[in-house]
Amino acid sequence: MHRATGSHLAAALFEPRSVALVGASADHTKASSRPLGFLRRSGFAGTVYPVNARRRSIGDEPVWPSVTELPEIPDHVFLMTPTAATVDAVEECGRLGVPVVTVLAGGFAESGPDGVRRQQELAAAARRHGTRVLGPSSLGLVNTRNGLTLTANAAFAEPGLQSGGTFVASHSGSMIGALLSRGIAGGVAFSHLVSVGGEVDLGIGEICAASLDDPAVTGYLLFLENLRHADGLRAFATAAARRGRPVLAYKLGRSRAAATLAVSHTGALAGEDDVAAAFLADCGIARAHTLDGLIEGLTLLGRTPVKPLAAARVGVVTTTGGGAAMVADQLGVRGITVAGPSAATLEKLPGVAPGAVVDLTLAGTRYEVMSSALDVMLGCGEYDLVIAVVGSSARHQPEVAVRPIVDRASRTALAAFLVPHAPEALAALTEAGVPAFRTPESCADAVVAAFGRGAPRDLRPVPAPAATVALDEAESYRLLASKGVPVAPHVVTEVDDPDCAGLTFPVAVKALSAELAHKSDVGGVVLNVVAPGDVRVAARSVRTAVSARAGLTVARVLVQSMARGLGEVLVGYRVDPDVGPVVLVAAGGVLTEVYADRSLRMAPVDLATAHQMLDEIRSIGSLRGHRGAVQGDLEALAALVVAVSRLAEDDTVAEAEINPVLVRPAGHGVVALDAVVRLREERKP
Amino acid sequence: MHRATGSHLAAALFEPRSVALVGASADHTKASSRPLGFLRRSGFAGTVYPVNARRRSIGDEPVWPSVTELPEIPDHVFLMTPTAATVDAVEECGRLGVPVVTVLAGGFAESGPDGVRRQQELAAAARRHGTRVLGPSSLGLVNTRNGLTLTANAAFAEPGLQSGGTFVASHSGSMIGALLSRGIAGGVAFSHLVSVGGEVDLGIGEICAASLDDPAVTGYLLFLENLRHADGLRAFATAAARRGRPVLAYKLGRSRAAATLAVSHTGALAGEDDVAAAFLADCGIARAHTLDGLIEGLTLLGRTPVKPLAAARVGVVTTTGGGAAMVADQLGVRGITVAGPSAATLEKLPGVAPGAVVDLTLAGTRYEVMSSALDVMLGCGEYDLVIAVVGSSARHQPEVAVRPIVDRASRTALAAFLVPHAPEALAALTEAGVPAFRTPESCADAVVAAFGRGAPRDLRPVPAPAATVALDEAESYRLLASKGVPVAPHVVTEVDDPDCAGLTFPVAVKALSAELAHKSDVGGVVLNVVAPGDVRVAARSVRTAVSARAGLTVARVLVQSMARGLGEVLVGYRVDPDVGPVVLVAAGGVLTEVYADRSLRMAPVDLATAHQMLDEIRSIGSLRGHRGAVQGDLEALAALVVAVSRLAEDDTVAEAEINPVLVRPAGHGVVALDAVVRLREERKP
Repeated sequence: MHRATGSHLAAALFEPRSVALVGASADHTKASSRPLGFLRRSGFAGTVYPVNARRRSIGDEPVWPSVTELPEIPDHVFLMTPTAATVDAVEECGRLGVPVVTVLAGGFAESGPDGVRRQQELAAAARRHGTRVLGPSSLGLVNTRNGLTLTANAAFAEPGLQSGGTFVASHSGSMIGALLSRGIAGGVAFSHLVSVGGEVDLGIGEICAASLDDPAVTGYLLFLENLRHADGLRAFATAAARRGRPVLAYKLGRSRAAATLAVSHTGALAGEDDVAAAFLADCGIARAHTLDGLIEGLTLLGRTPVKPLAAARVGVVTTTGGGAAMVADQLGVRGITVAGPSAATLEKLPGVAPGAVVDLTLAGTRYEVMSSALDVMLGCGEYDLVIAVVGSSARHQPEVAVRPIVDRASRTALAAFLVPHAPEALAALTEAGVPAFRTPESCADAVVAAFGRGAPRDLRPVPAPAATVALDEAESYRLLASKGVPVAPHVVTEVDDPDCAGLTFPVAVKALSAELAHKSDVGGVVLNVVAPGDVRVAARSVRTAVSARAGLTVARVLVQSMARGLGEVLVGYRVDPDVGPVVLVAAGGVLTEVYADRSLRMAPVDLATAHQMLDEIRSIGSLRGHRGAVQGDLEALAALVVAVSRLAEDDTVAEAEINPVLVRPAGHGVVALDAVVRLREERKP
Repeated sequence: MHRATGSHLAAALFEPRSVALVGASADHTKASSRPLGFLRRSGFAGTVYPVNARRRSIGDEPVWPSVTELPEIPDHVFLMTPTAATVDAVEECGRLGVPVVTVLAGGFAESGPDGVRRQQELAAAARRHGTRVLGPSSLGLVNTRNGLTLTANAAFAEPGLQSGGTFVASHSGSMIGALLSRGIAGGVAFSHLVSVGGEVDLGIGEICAASLDDPAVTGYLLFLENLRHADGLRAFATAAARRGRPVLAYKLGRSRAAATLAVSHTGALAGEDDVAAAFLADCGIARAHTLDGLIEGLTLLGRTPVKPLAAARVGVVTTTGGGAAMVADQLGVRGITVAGPSAATLEKLPGVAPGAVVDLTLAGTRYEVMSSALDVMLGCGEYDLVIAVVGSSARHQPEVAVRPIVDRASRTALAAFLVPHAPEALAALTEAGVPAFRTPESCADAVVAAFGRGAPRDLRPVPAPAATVALDEAESYRLLASKGVPVAPHVVTEVDDPDCAGLTFPVAVKALSAELAHKSDVGGVVLNVVAPGDVRVAARSVRTAVSARAGLTVARVLVQSMARGLGEVLVGYRVDPDVGPVVLVAAGGVLTEVYADRSLRMAPVDLATAHQMLDEIRSIGSLRGHRGAVQGDLEALAALVVAVSRLAEDDTVAEAEINPVLVRPAGHGVVALDAVVRLREERKP
C-alpha cells in the first residue's frame, strides 16, 4: 500500500468517509465510550463502525467483531484497545490497507525500555504496510466543519461547537480540551483540534501541513512538548508562511534551560530552551510565553511589521490610567517602550495631556471621543500598533469605548486590552477580528511575539551525527582556516627538536593531541615563552606534565604566537540532535556561565544576523567604543561567526568550538587562539 | 478640631452616619450623578445629603444649597466640584468641622506647577482645620457591609455585590472597578474598596490601618503606583502582620528599573523597582507580578512557610499531564523545582508512575482517586504545598476532581490550578477558601509570592536628606573605620614633601579632594609606585593633571598601600527619598552595569541577611571555592555589609559607597580600597 501523504492523508485524517472505533465501549464512565456519542451528536455524515469482539451492540448501534469483518475498508481507524494489543491491531489495519490509524493507548516510548521496544514494533508495523499512525497516546482529532469529533477527550461533550479558522495541534491530548474551552470563552472559533501524541509516524508538522489546502483554516496554534520532528515542523511552517497563515506556539521546557546551561568542549553549547527558541524563530513560528497569550495572540500575528523590539512604535490610548500603565509596564519589561504622540498629533486630540499614553479620562468615555482618538492615532503614521485600553465601560457600556474599536476591526494596526472582567466585550472584539486581551501580561506577550516573528528559512535538513571524533588543535585550525576563520600563527613541531621559524615571540607552547580535551588542566600549556631557545624546555615540561597527569604521550607541540586584544568571546557550532545545525556566540569564561550571556541561531547565518547576535550579547557593549574606549573589530567578528555557521554546509563537521576568539581594535581583525573541531565519525577523512 | 485618626477615622471613612454629596448631578451621563444612585440602591442606612447650589431636587430627593446649610455636620463629604473650587470647599468643610472629605477632582500635584501649588493649598487647608482628606483624584470608597457605595466609579452600577473579607486599596481609581469585577468572577468577595488617589493627606497605609479593628477584614490587596507614604505603609503592614492578615501588592514601575540602573558616585545605586521590591519585602508585603496573581493569590499567603525558593517543597498532583507540566515549568522559571514523591509515598499512590508530578491519568479521574492522592500527599510530610491540577473534568464534572479539593479546604497546604475554562469550579474553590488559579502563570506568581513573603521589621523612619555634602577620601575612611569597616593602610601627606612612613610598598598615590568625584578620569591617581623616593614625582603629576583637567588645586595626596585579592565588589548605602535607608552589594564594575548583578535591602541588615545578599549576587559564586579555586573571605564581606548598613543608625550620613571592596582569601579579611561618604548638609560637623 502507498503511504498516504498530502491530500490523501488530509482526506483520511480530516474528511474520512468512514471511521472504525475499535474497542468502543458501552460503559459511559470509560473514555472509549465517548467517540461514538460525540460523532452521533455532532452529526458526522460518514459511516461509523463500532468494533468490539465482546459485544454485539451499543444502544441501538450494531457492533462489529473486528476491522477485518467490516463491510468496507474504513478510511480511518480509532484504536482504543489496550497497549499490549496495539501492535497486532495496527498490523491488522495495515494488512487491510487502512490509510490512517489513530492510537489512543499510552505506554510506549515515554514509559521505559519495554515501551521503547513497543514503539519500535509499532513504527515497524506502520512502515511495513504503509499505514499512517497518529499517536500513540493520541486523544484523537476533531474537524468542526464535518462533525468529525473523533476523540476521547471529555471536553468535547459540550454542545454547540462553533466552526472557525483556528487549527490546533498539541502534543498533550488534554490541552486540546483546555484550548477549546478557553478559546470559546474568548471568542476564538476552531477548524480542527488534533491530539498529536507520541509521533511514532505522523509528526506535528505533517499533520498541520495536511490542512494547508483547506481554505477555511486561517492560522495555527501549537502546544509543543518537544521538537523531535523538527524537519517536518519547519517544512510546514515554511509552507504556512507562503500562504500568509500565522503560526503561534507555546513550548514547554523553559525552566530546564536555567539548569542545563553548560559551555564546554563537550558540545553542550547552550540550554535546551535556547535551541528551541532559535529553531522556532528560524521557522517563522511566533512563540507565546503565557497560556492566555497563546489563545489570544494568534490574530495579532501579521498585523505588525517584524522589527527589533526597541524600534517597535507602539501607542496606547485609554479610558483608564491604571490599566494603560499596566500594559505599558509589561511592554517595558519585555523591551518595548510605549511612545506618546508627536506635538502635531497631540493637537488633534483635544483634552489629552502630553505623555506616553493617550489618556481620554478627561475627554470623557464617549463613542465619539474614542472613535476620533483611534482615527487620529491610526492615521498619523507614527505607530506600528495602537493598543486601545478600555476600563469599566467595557463591561457595562460596550457601546461607548469597545464599539469604536469593533467598528475599526479592518484597521490591522489595532489591538485591545480590557481592564475589567468583560467576557462578552472580549469575545465580541475577537469575533470581529480585533486581537483582544484579558490581561496586561498576555497583551505584552502577544505584542512581543508579533514584532519578533521572523520569516521562515528553507534550510536543508542536516541529520544528527551518530558518533563524533575530535581533530587535534592543528587539524582543527586547518579546517577552520579553510572556511575563512583567521587563526593565530602557529607551527607544529617536535618536543625534543622544536623549530619555530617565522613565529613572532612570545609564544604559547601547547601539547598537541586529539585525545586531550582540557590541556590547560593537566599542565599541557606553557604561556609567555619569550625566546626560541626556551621552547624546548617548555615543550618538555608540557610532555612531562601531560604524561604524569593524563597518562598520554605527547610527541609534538603546537607553538603559537601570543596575541593581545580588547576582549575575548567564544564561538561554537554543533548539530543539535532535534533541530540541526546551530551557531553560538558567548561572552566567554565566567560571563557565559554566570550570566548566560550568549546568542544562538540556526546555522548558517548571514552577516546581518551575525551582527544581531553580537547585539544580543550584553558584554560586547564594552567593545563598541563607548565613553572614549577603543572600539573592537566587530565587523571581523561577525564575519567569523558567519564562517563558523557555514560549517552547516559541510557534512563532515559535527561540532566546532573556538574559545577564545580574540577581538582586536577595529580594522585589526579577530583571531582564533584555541579551537577544537569534531567530525562525524562515519566520515572521518 | 482634632484630626480624626484610629477609630474616629475608621468611623468617618467607613461607617459614617451621614454623608454629603457636594456637586451631585441629576445628569446621568455625569460621574457626579452616580454616588446618590449607588447609595440608594445599596441601601445605605445613614443620612445622605445631596448638595448643589444650582438645583433644588434630584428626582424626588431634596438637594441642599451648601454644606453650611445642612441640618447637621456630616461625618463624610464627597466633594465632586471642579478642581478650581476644591480648596474653598475643603476650607468650608474644615471650618464646619467635617472629619473626612473625599476629593474627586484631579488637576493637582500630577499636573504641573499650578497643580503642585493647588495641592499645597489643599494640604494647608486640611491641616489648618484638622479635616482629613481622601484624594484628590479619588473615585471614592465602598464598604460592602453597610451599603456605603460612596463612589463615582461606574463599575459599582452592578447589582448584587457580595460582602466578604478582602480589603482593596488602589492609587488608581479605575482599578477598584477592575478588581471588583475580576474578583467577583473568580469568587473573591470584598469588604472595602478604596480609591486612594493623590494622598495629599491620607496615605494608603493609614487608610488600610483604619480597618484593622474590623474583624470582617481578612486580608489586603494593594494596587500601588508609588511609595510616597512609605512610613505609613510600613506601620500598617507591621500591624496587619501582628493580626495575621496577609497583604498582597501589585506595584507599577517594573519596567523603568531596567532603564534607570546606574551605579556611580552620584548615589543612584540601583533601579527604582529594586528599591520598591526591597521595601515591600521588608514590610512583609507580598508582591504579585501578574494581574491574575494579585486577584487570586491573597488566600495562598500564610498557607506556606516562608523559605528560600530553592528550598520550597512543592508537589503537583494532576489529572492532566500537559496542564501540570505548564505549572511545573512556570515554577521552574521562577526558581521552584517541583518535587516528586519519595518511593515510600509513591507506593501509596497506586497507578502513579515515578516522576516529578503525581499523574493520575492512568488511575482515572474519579473522586476516590483524587481524594486518596490528596490525602497521601498532604499527609506524607514531604510537601510545604500541594498543587492540584485539574483538567477537562473541572468544567464538566467538578464532582470527580474539584470536589475532593473543596472537601479538603481546611488543609492549608493545598492550592489548585484549573486547566480548562471553568469559572464555576474556580469560584467554588475560592469561595471554599482554596487558593485557585486560572493560569499557570498566576499560580506560579502567587506561589513564589507566598514562599518569599517575609516578616515585617519595625524600622525607625529616617527622613530623606534635603541636601548632602561629600567628605574627602581620608575623612570617608575615618568615618567608615569608626563603624567597623576595614580600610587599606594609607597616609595623607603634602604633595611637595610626602611622608609615607609605615606604608608597605607598592602604593597608590591619589589626589585628595572632596570636590573631585571621579579622580581617575582626570589623572588624579597613580598606581604601582614602588619606592618611597618615587612618591613625590607621582604626587606632583597628580597635582598637575588635576589642575589641568579639573581646574582644582590639590595640596595633599592620599598614599595607600596596594593590595591584592580574589575579587572586588561594591558596597553602597543611601537614604532613598521615599522608603529610607538601603544597602546595596554589587558585583562591581562592568558586571553591575551590564548584568544588573546586585542585591539590595532596607538598612540595617543582620549577618544572616548580609549572607543572603551575597548569595543573590551571581558573580560571587567564583569566590565560593568551587572547582578547587581559593575561597574568598565571605564572612568578613558579610560583616562589612552589616557595618555599612548600620549607617542607618547614624543620622549624619546620607550616602556611602565603597568601590571596590577587595575580597581576600578566607581568613584574610576584606578591605576598602576607595570610598566616598556624603553627609546631610545640615549636620556637617
